[in-house]
Amino acid sequence: MAVTPSSDAIAGLREFLAIPSVSVDPTHRDDMRSAADWVAAQLAWANGRVVESDGNPVVLAEWLGRPGATTIVVYGHYDVQPAGDEAEWESPPFEPTVRDDRIYARGATDDKGPVVVALETARRFVDETGGLPLNVRFLIEGEEEVGSPSLPAFLELHRDELAADLVVSADGAMWRPSEPSVSVAAKGLVAFDLVVEGPATDLHSGRHGGAVQNPNHALARIVASLHDDEGSVEVPGFYDEVEPLSDADAAALAQIPFDEESYRADVGVTALHGEPGHSTLERLWTRPTLEVNELRGGGPFTVIPRVARAHLTSRLVPGQHPEAIVDVVAAHVVRHTPPGVTARIELQPGAVPAYALGAGHPAADAAVQALRSVYPGSEPLLVRIGGTLPAASLFERILGLKTLLFSFSTSDEQLHAPNEFFRLSRLEEGVAAWSELWRLLA
Amino acid sequence: MAVTPSSDAIAGLREFLAIPSVSVDPTHRDDMRSAADWVAAQLAWANGRVVESDGNPVVLAEWLGRPGATTIVVYGHYDVQPAGDEAEWESPPFEPTVRDDRIYARGATDDKGPVVVALETARRFVDETGGLPLNVRFLIEGEEEVGSPSLPAFLELHRDELAADLVVSADGAMWRPSEPSVSVAAKGLVAFDLVVEGPATDLHSGRHGGAVQNPNHALARIVASLHDDEGSVEVPGFYDEVEPLSDADAAALAQIPFDEESYRADVGVTALHGEPGHSTLERLWTRPTLEVNELRGGGPFTVIPRVARAHLTSRLVPGQHPEAIVDVVAAHVVRHTPPGVTARIELQPGAVPAYALGAGHPAADAAVQALRSVYPGSEPLLVRIGGTLPAASLFERILGLKTLLFSFSTSDEQLHAPNEFFRLSRLEEGVAAWSELWRLLA
Repeated sequence: MAVTPSSDAIAGLREFLAIPSVSVDPTHRDDMRSAADWVAAQLAWANGRVVESDGNPVVLAEWLGRPGATTIVVYGHYDVQPAGDEAEWESPPFEPTVRDDRIYARGATDDKGPVVVALETARRFVDETGGLPLNVRFLIEGEEEVGSPSLPAFLELHRDELAADLVVSADGAMWRPSEPSVSVAAKGLVAFDLVVEGPATDLHSGRHGGAVQNPNHALARIVASLHDDEGSVEVPGFYDEVEPLSDADAAALAQIPFDEESYRADVGVTALHGEPGHSTLERLWTRPTLEVNELRGGGPFTVIPRVARAHLTSRLVPGQHPEAIVDVVAAHVVRHTPPGVTARIELQPGAVPAYALGAGHPAADAAVQALRSVYPGSEPLLVRIGGTLPAASLFERILGLKTLLFSFSTSDEQLHAPNEFFRLSRLEEGVAAWSELWRLLA
Repeated sequence: MAVTPSSDAIAGLREFLAIPSVSVDPTHRDDMRSAADWVAAQLAWANGRVVESDGNPVVLAEWLGRPGATTIVVYGHYDVQPAGDEAEWESPPFEPTVRDDRIYARGATDDKGPVVVALETARRFVDETGGLPLNVRFLIEGEEEVGSPSLPAFLELHRDELAADLVVSADGAMWRPSEPSVSVAAKGLVAFDLVVEGPATDLHSGRHGGAVQNPNHALARIVASLHDDEGSVEVPGFYDEVEPLSDADAAALAQIPFDEESYRADVGVTALHGEPGHSTLERLWTRPTLEVNELRGGGPFTVIPRVARAHLTSRLVPGQHPEAIVDVVAAHVVRHTPPGVTARIELQPGAVPAYALGAGHPAADAAVQALRSVYPGSEPLLVRIGGTLPAASLFERILGLKTLLFSFSTSDEQLHAPNEFFRLSRLEEGVAAWSELWRLLA
């Protein structure tokens, strides 16, 4: 097993990471194009091209030199989350910086590092053998971090160019750096804003304090009503559609080693918290959540703001419908809106249901074998991820394809947070595992 | 009574308003100096000078040509609130714009317009008579909007230069444009942040949702616990020190015409809201408040933030001590902090107790007479303001001087909000009233 990362691949990753392709921010439109161009250039040998969509462009490429062999679609994304507060970064988010075995930059682990693993795997096969062991189509999109809103129409339009047997995703993190794993399920996602409006304009809190309902207070009351003291979602109907965990799933879950105290220390909280009656791992992997990602109202001066807002996301499990969740939350908000303000839900685009590969799928078996070959002595685990892969749901619905999640990202790499990084050693390990996987799938 | 504003005074006010002297923002340090220089230049005839303090400089000036006559200190401030969201302004906050009888700009009514009234009053006396009817010292500070933190030490240091019989304040708005009034009391103020910290770093809300207490949720629970459903502050001890309203005060209050429905429509809320058992006017003028001015945590993406914050201000009434209020709120926060997060109070500097001139003070009588002369047929009202004048408390404590609030700002002029304005007709009315007041005080 190679442990020294290829300097060519690292140099490429550095270039890729230096492009601030933040999809949620329209001022980065040119950067989206630059990132797509960079990916297409790496795939020039496979007719790599930037194809317009209704939103950010998509990179397509294909090598189909094995008639009769399996055909896979390799999926990944070139867009990244916003950097957040740059003051919290030890090195600037778009100046990739190597410290020890880690390269730090926004997007390093989600998803540019894992995309480079896939690109490098293909490049080496071609360099060394003149071709690939199976037919590969590439689909690298630029809207994953905003819920892939343009992907459905794109897949419909390019269905013929994407004919295949399976999708292999470079997105969707591995559980832990020390324990190789294959993710066989991902939660769904629906995002919305809760907007509370009070007076016609911002008011001076000295002049008007005590006379009107403050939208900040009203927002806090509504948000506080969403969960009970122990962390269960207290919105009536929220859990109604959750499919009970099968005995087989529960048994598989029970086999996963999970040290709650070590997890608590890792995330740095004084105590874990959440729905009673479920272990922390069950809550992370099998229970739906409702999280307030943002609270925003007024400013640090003497104001009663006109409006206060919360941004919320709900992670869904199999059985739950995004629209049904929004409906029950909206009804709850109506019941908990105090007098003197109005409240409304603004649905964000891109909701997706949960996704599961299905236990015993041959692709999962191949992935486990490939990992065994790269990490001899470790028995790969079949795990789930709490994050969402909208693309996997779309591939199933539109292309009729299951998706194997085979990322070499790991969940401790500060995904969506300051100081995001990717382990450079995982680059070579990833290339080795992807190479073996392709041979097995062929 | 003159009703056409002086174009010279308006031109001056425009210059003054164009200086973005935002005291809360350290990037405006040069602007603070420019605004102070502008005021000092207007007072060159009275030895106007910019004097250093521990913070933003103070403008001092004096004309003492009437030995034996009354000496007053004219107080005002050249600093302004931040503009807030500039998108909500119809014209840019620091490009003064006249529409009809109104000049729009940040600081127009708080406090640059009223300061220009005082400057113009003095200038005209000097132009027309060669002097003033009484001795006047000017003290125009630059930290009112941040709680005047440097003023106490400044007053101690310059006590001799400020020897006087009374302070007349150009700050502290008149109640309504249609009803002349003298404000005889102002609430106190204490400001603090509530900081809730959870995980060691921002977490991905998919990866970690359901396992940890979200600081946004915890902040909302704490904020929601501060008030009951009807709007009373539910912090034990919060009302303990409130002095009951005297019969005389209650009777004076009952004489004030106040149409709750018209007020409701003015502020644009669907219903008024607040402490039961008190009229809206009682709540505004005589009851302490606890307002959350800002909620801030996370961002509009899939994050569980490391930290969530609220900025709070409490308006105090006579009898209440700022430090006691912070203590009871801090104790309440401890009791209402859910497991899995920590919460703390960060006190802001500049707390001040409430201030009252005292019923029947000769300065209040003179003010009422001066207003009668400018608004014949209207009987001036003795009112209170919900806002805070830290300087008045300091003048009493350090200089032993009572303060007469005699501003020509009115409370409907979008103080601290977008589209702040000052009525130009009030400029001439203000000069006429100040002139008469000075003659009466002499």
